[in-house]
Amino acid sequence: MSVRADMELTPERCDVECLHPEHVRPLLGRIISSDDADAVVGTFELLADPTRARILHALALTRELCVCDLALLLGLSQSAISHQLRSLRDRRAVRRRRSGRIVYYALADAHVRSLLRDGVTHAREDAALLRRTSSGRR
Amino acid sequence: MSVRADMELTPERCDVECLHPEHVRPLLGRIISSDDADAVVGTFELLADPTRARILHALALTRELCVCDLALLLGLSQSAISHQLRSLRDRRAVRRRRSGRIVYYALADAHVRSLLRDGVTHAREDAALLRRTSSGRR
Repeated sequence: MSVRADMELTPERCDVECLHPEHVRPLLGRIISSDDADAVVGTFELLADPTRARILHALALTRELCVCDLALLLGLSQSAISHQLRSLRDRRAVRRRRSGRIVYYALADAHVRSLLRDGVTHAREDAALLRRTSSGRR
Repeated sequence: MSVRADMELTPERCDVECLHPEHVRPLLGRIISSDDADAVVGTFELLADPTRARILHALALTRELCVCDLALLLGLSQSAISHQLRSLRDRRAVRRRRSGRIVYYALADAHVRSLLRDGVTHAREDAALLRRTSSGRR
């Protein structure tokens, strides 16, 4: 074996210390700060819950829904739905409007809609890739 | 006070039990299942880490970077970067290619790029909204 022991342990790294000024220079000062990264993490943490993800996916597929509609669609109690809607509204992922005695919910903005759609697409493609890989190994 | 006590406790809900078949019917069978939701949650959990979010944001701003470039840009050790790159590669959020003695990383696909951009945009707009709200209260 000519491979060094530390290379086997860390195949993620380059074999030599190297830098690419032409890649690095245009990015200086543009990458999110640690504080901004914490805010981004907060957004992704909010989405990292199966019930919240399903509520948001339902809202991403339509314009607006009330708690009763969401409870029926997701097969959950209105209490469970409204608990999660409160978290989502506190973090400005959804907004609500009252019309008479009914309260409708909608996604807060187009970014939340894109986040949900891309998250679902990535997860589905990832699952399909895993299935193909595991069937190829048989 | 004419408001019922339970309404004050649960302002998220409609005052009356109601359903909107015209909203619900087109969505039947289209909302992600609980299993799919778990996969989506896995994707968002992967992004919900400040170092991983910053690595992915750097990669979202360019085509590819090596570990040495990323370590310099993020002000972290190569060991810390390669540890997170391994998690990201295991979950197919990034891919790598070797060119001679250098290992380059890139985002796995356009969905991961969109997820990062929308997550960053939502977090920034959210922070700006909070600042406006809190300065309006002064």
